[in-house]
Amino acid sequence: MTDLDLDDPAASPFAPDGLPGVAVVIGTGLIGASIGCALTEAGCRVHLRDHKLSHAQVAASLGAGVTEAPRSADVEVVVVAVPPAAIPDVVGHALQTYRAATVTDVGSVKAGVLDALWDRHVPIERYVGSHPMAGSQRSGPMAANAGLFADRTWVITPHRRSATASIETVASVVTACRARPVVMDVDDHDAAVARVSHLPHLMSVLMAGHLNTVSAEDLLLAGQGLRDVTRVAASDPELWEQILSANAAAVASELRTVQAELASLIGAIEARPASRGLRAQLERGVTGTRKIPGKHGAQPVDYRQVVVEIPDHPGALAQLFATVEAAGVNIEDVSIEHDQVLQVGYLALSVSPQRADGLVAAIAASGWRVASHPSD
Amino acid sequence: MTDLDLDDPAASPFAPDGLPGVAVVIGTGLIGASIGCALTEAGCRVHLRDHKLSHAQVAASLGAGVTEAPRSADVEVVVVAVPPAAIPDVVGHALQTYRAATVTDVGSVKAGVLDALWDRHVPIERYVGSHPMAGSQRSGPMAANAGLFADRTWVITPHRRSATASIETVASVVTACRARPVVMDVDDHDAAVARVSHLPHLMSVLMAGHLNTVSAEDLLLAGQGLRDVTRVAASDPELWEQILSANAAAVASELRTVQAELASLIGAIEARPASRGLRAQLERGVTGTRKIPGKHGAQPVDYRQVVVEIPDHPGALAQLFATVEAAGVNIEDVSIEHDQVLQVGYLALSVSPQRADGLVAAIAASGWRVASHPSD
Repeated sequence: MTDLDLDDPAASPFAPDGLPGVAVVIGTGLIGASIGCALTEAGCRVHLRDHKLSHAQVAASLGAGVTEAPRSADVEVVVVAVPPAAIPDVVGHALQTYRAATVTDVGSVKAGVLDALWDRHVPIERYVGSHPMAGSQRSGPMAANAGLFADRTWVITPHRRSATASIETVASVVTACRARPVVMDVDDHDAAVARVSHLPHLMSVLMAGHLNTVSAEDLLLAGQGLRDVTRVAASDPELWEQILSANAAAVASELRTVQAELASLIGAIEARPASRGLRAQLERGVTGTRKIPGKHGAQPVDYRQVVVEIPDHPGALAQLFATVEAAGVNIEDVSIEHDQVLQVGYLALSVSPQRADGLVAAIAASGWRVASHPSD
Repeated sequence: MTDLDLDDPAASPFAPDGLPGVAVVIGTGLIGASIGCALTEAGCRVHLRDHKLSHAQVAASLGAGVTEAPRSADVEVVVVAVPPAAIPDVVGHALQTYRAATVTDVGSVKAGVLDALWDRHVPIERYVGSHPMAGSQRSGPMAANAGLFADRTWVITPHRRSATASIETVASVVTACRARPVVMDVDDHDAAVARVSHLPHLMSVLMAGHLNTVSAEDLLLAGQGLRDVTRVAASDPELWEQILSANAAAVASELRTVQAELASLIGAIEARPASRGLRAQLERGVTGTRKIPGKHGAQPVDYRQVVVEIPDHPGALAQLFATVEAAGVNIEDVSIEHDQVLQVGYLALSVSPQRADGLVAAIAASGWRVASHPSD
């Protein structure tokens, strides 16, 4: 995986260098219509094509482009945003229709498309696959917005005969959508999405499918955990059948690993006396959640702790937080500490190092007892 | 499962009949401190006990009660909100210390506690288990609030020797917390939470644990789906080890069913040519998500559709929605329809039946073309 050597997209998001003047977006669902909106905002003339004219009309009315056909010789880039099973045909047709254009698709699985194109007599130099890591619980053009891709990873998967100019054109589309372009090998990409997207989707489907065996009475006890785990299982089965079928080998390999982990989990739960395996699997889960990068991949900041003695009369904490808010300081975290010898409790407020001294002064001025950190 | 025949809690949430005057809450984490806040708001004097005095102090400063010890003879109800493994000892001790009090616990698994108490010489008539279906991603007293249980299910699990007066006392606590009391048999409750809480937790743990084998580069491609599926796996492993161990047989039985479903899913994905099994499992997942009741268990309303012809110039839809908003009408759903003969698209706006005529008038007055439903 390589970061593309491009200018910082944040520096000039609305006028990236080299953005094509005329684009065609084929397929105006959520992704296609959102790309149309972003490219239009960036100054590109976007022509919208969809076999459902009403979808193209909705996308146009949201500012994604125009529904008129372009002069094919003018088109510099084509973005194919149709369902996975239709991608090879539509890309092949676009390469032949728009003879000067770079063609990209935004499908979730890349190897099958490339293999299918490779077998045809199409000018494959002008094709460069890509995959924006963005979506929404809603689908269709109504949910489209130009900001859908802002700060998201958008993978570009060139092949060995991709023209450099075409790779750069696709990168300029990504940058115009305010996404972060990342170049990956086709097979590496497909293996990665099997792990971080297709496998979690199927775990959600397994759990949700199992609910068909659960009574309505029992489901009254459902909480947020169940809703979170099963949310993605509500997605379009037709679309997901196409995605999963296109990446079947990689997905099956991940499922087989989970199958072994499930067997070991069952063994740990059934063990008498209780084995250490259950605790180990639970802790492994916690470690796993921490590996998921934050939305912007930001590193945690080193905060400073301001420690305050806790009074226990009602309303005291509300007053403390009012004091903090009046001082204009953001509390990043709060923890409770206890001094066993003094039998007194403390609140440790984590704040950015620059604001710590000001906060201490404000708290002390309000009559609170600021302690040094108990463990200092 | 039986709904308790109680007055509508919404009618007088702050003064439920028969609410005890003096309560003890033992364990002032999120749940205990929130119960303390709700009971205090309802007019009860609440004494907070915690082996971490600092937690009781924080809870007190948030309005959950006082940290002074009560006169034991005055105490009418004791709520035990300690970690699962400690519940039997603490309940048993409370039954002997507070000789006039009903004692309940709020643990997630009920059979083990009851069995342990049954073996001891304690006045078990005054014990009635319960389980509020509420929580938060945050833990500890800092996150406590009196509204945590509002409109949530709170299961009450009496046993065959529970005194009627004690069952009513626990129900009054539930009602004072603005939760919906539901009575269940102990074993039925434990089987239900195995299905709707413990199993989804472990599916999340399996997926999160698997991320330890995934590279940081691949994790850059993670989206919201992965975050949702793995969120609950970040919960406290020590707490969950206790919960799952206490319900091991029921949980293992659910896991074995999922194990069979996973094997069939792997078979469907690996089948060549593609089997219909994959699509069937994906559709079964969608059906399963629809079985989860809404937050308030509300039935879907029959909406009426107002159908508008879509103009495709930029900004048109924004104008339409501004017109709708000015008319004060809530749009419940929007779908796109297409007339193949006329080659024109329509938006179908779902609104409550009473508002439909007003909306049609407002839209037509603004110059939009309102169509009858294309399928009429």
